[in-house]
Amino acid sequence: MKEVQLLGATGSIGTQTVDIIEEFPHDFRLTAVSARDSVSKIVEIGKRHDLDTIVMAAKHRSTIEKALPETTFISLEEGGLETVARDGRDAVLVNALVGSAGLTPTLAAVESGKDVLLANKESLVVGGELIKKAMKKTEARIIPIDSEHSALAEILAGNRIEDVEKLVITASGGSLRHLGKDELAAVTPKDALKHPNWQMGAKITIDSATMMNKVFEVIEAHHLFDIPYERIEAILHKESVVHALVHFKDGNVHAHMGAADMHIPILTALQGEERKPYRSLFDLARMGTLHFDPIDHERYPLFDLGLAVAKRGGLHTVTLNAANEAAVGLFLAEKISFNEIETLIKKALDHFQNDNHLTLKKILAHDQKVRKFIEDIVKQKVKTK
Amino acid sequence: MKEVQLLGATGSIGTQTVDIIEEFPHDFRLTAVSARDSVSKIVEIGKRHDLDTIVMAAKHRSTIEKALPETTFISLEEGGLETVARDGRDAVLVNALVGSAGLTPTLAAVESGKDVLLANKESLVVGGELIKKAMKKTEARIIPIDSEHSALAEILAGNRIEDVEKLVITASGGSLRHLGKDELAAVTPKDALKHPNWQMGAKITIDSATMMNKVFEVIEAHHLFDIPYERIEAILHKESVVHALVHFKDGNVHAHMGAADMHIPILTALQGEERKPYRSLFDLARMGTLHFDPIDHERYPLFDLGLAVAKRGGLHTVTLNAANEAAVGLFLAEKISFNEIETLIKKALDHFQNDNHLTLKKILAHDQKVRKFIEDIVKQKVKTK
Repeated sequence: MKEVQLLGATGSIGTQTVDIIEEFPHDFRLTAVSARDSVSKIVEIGKRHDLDTIVMAAKHRSTIEKALPETTFISLEEGGLETVARDGRDAVLVNALVGSAGLTPTLAAVESGKDVLLANKESLVVGGELIKKAMKKTEARIIPIDSEHSALAEILAGNRIEDVEKLVITASGGSLRHLGKDELAAVTPKDALKHPNWQMGAKITIDSATMMNKVFEVIEAHHLFDIPYERIEAILHKESVVHALVHFKDGNVHAHMGAADMHIPILTALQGEERKPYRSLFDLARMGTLHFDPIDHERYPLFDLGLAVAKRGGLHTVTLNAANEAAVGLFLAEKISFNEIETLIKKALDHFQNDNHLTLKKILAHDQKVRKFIEDIVKQKVKTK
Repeated sequence: MKEVQLLGATGSIGTQTVDIIEEFPHDFRLTAVSARDSVSKIVEIGKRHDLDTIVMAAKHRSTIEKALPETTFISLEEGGLETVARDGRDAVLVNALVGSAGLTPTLAAVESGKDVLLANKESLVVGGELIKKAMKKTEARIIPIDSEHSALAEILAGNRIEDVEKLVITASGGSLRHLGKDELAAVTPKDALKHPNWQMGAKITIDSATMMNKVFEVIEAHHLFDIPYERIEAILHKESVVHALVHFKDGNVHAHMGAADMHIPILTALQGEERKPYRSLFDLARMGTLHFDPIDHERYPLFDLGLAVAKRGGLHTVTLNAANEAAVGLFLAEKISFNEIETLIKKALDHFQNDNHLTLKKILAHDQKVRKFIEDIVKQKVKTK
């Protein structure tokens, strides 16, 4: 019986993780969950599972303690995510948080020797070097839940990274791919949230439309598989049927395919070595036609910009991520246009210096500083209108 | 240094095997070759390699012994193929012969404990059960050179066959795929030999056009990977970019892709565990569009017929293969029409009884009997015209 702690239990990945745990009740036990404010969803989960711990915003303490008196409540404000991540050494931690908020618990879990099943790619984007250092000390592992990285891990199993010529991940092109660059200015959050292939959270759906998501995935692949950026490539594939490819140096090319269903990478991460029987609706012969194209760098300027930042590394990667998180939040709140996401990220990168000596404290402080910088620009603009 | 014996050295696979051996002169040494009549090609190979043995038709003895006095000549007539297969226990045997003629040396090699790198799929089609029995005794392995099976072996490495839901191999549809069933009657050997994707020998190119090749490949996969016929599928894929897929029971689907270049499966079989650097020109983003479809069973009636025979097993599989070899030979010699390949195979299957107790002797005798049956029908028909 594998104990599972789940941070971000009520989001898209969190909900599907609960599905998998409930599909295999003899294999997995849910011991801890977190969510910011989704009280009724957490209470429902708590009634179905024998939870040890619930982490939520402090204001929900009395409601939760009343509904689930057997379960320990720890607030986000008193560091509940980190406490859970450091506790329960026999458990695995599923990190399904959104954004750089995922870094602290990822690092805490790895430092305490716990395997992290990672859907929160921003952990690796902003703290990749720190996490890698901690992994070396404790031998904790990061197991990807991201579909492309789950695919790569599947293919690479049993192979040596020296035998890899390159890794290729596919990009759908996102919800606005049918629009030309000049048509993007008028796009609303509602337009941008209609992803053609995947049902995902709001933030990642926007990141997918700007191709920033693919930048993050390249960074994630770089850290997860210890492979230089020069040997990671992204290509357009609008059907999202092929998730990733590995070109081996002898000319063999392996690919991973499947339905656009995150339950499969979640199960893959949870099950470990032994494959469990799960639904499989994939039928390539019924797919008909699959399309592949190089990425259009003019149409997706953030892809090149982001990769250039990633290759330099250091604090600029934190700037990139924080500016993106702040800008995407402002776009979703209808405070800025779609194209301003790019403009604001560029402004932040121009404004802040790089720094290659990173600590967790420095990363978290810089993250806040960049967000404030972006928000101030937008407030200023609103005032001057 | 791995010693390599090569049967069928001057055919399509044979020539490409020599290419690979010459590309890696420090890893492989060619010790024996066979060919029926291609004297000048064999002399060329003999001058470039330090061969121990050459096997050819007896009539070429004096020419070969004059040109290559250091090399032992054994004729086909005195059982040269089998002698080579039983000799040189440290070598591997590449069997690139065409047709059921490949069975005797495959079996001899396996019986003497030697690994066989098998391009001759007919060995497994007609003698699968015998070969499997011998493999259990000596622990010799069959390593596939066929592109689809090389692909499957690549994907399956490190996985358990119990975790496989199904294997899928792709079929290009062959050289006549653009023609409707009613247009096939008038097809000439020249039309049928223009394969759209692969440069292959004549016999396999016709088998590819009738889809008999895919029947043979399903049988081959069944024997190679110990998997029931019910869990092997073939689908149409006209670009031949995806060679095979494995559906695992947990929903993960792995595929093998690559250029239509037999050098890669040949290298894969020869190199063993360690991947050697080789050319890799594959670029999925430049492929543009890939098509997948279910097999049209009306268009390719031999596919269902052949599979039904395969599932029953026994001597009927030998009838199927021998009738096919004879009929394809007659078509290539312009003695029969393309559609008569199917008619003649059906006649043979109707005429001969099945028998589930196979021995090598019985298989070889039956093979001859079926060929004669087919040839007699055609002679008879010519007479009555």
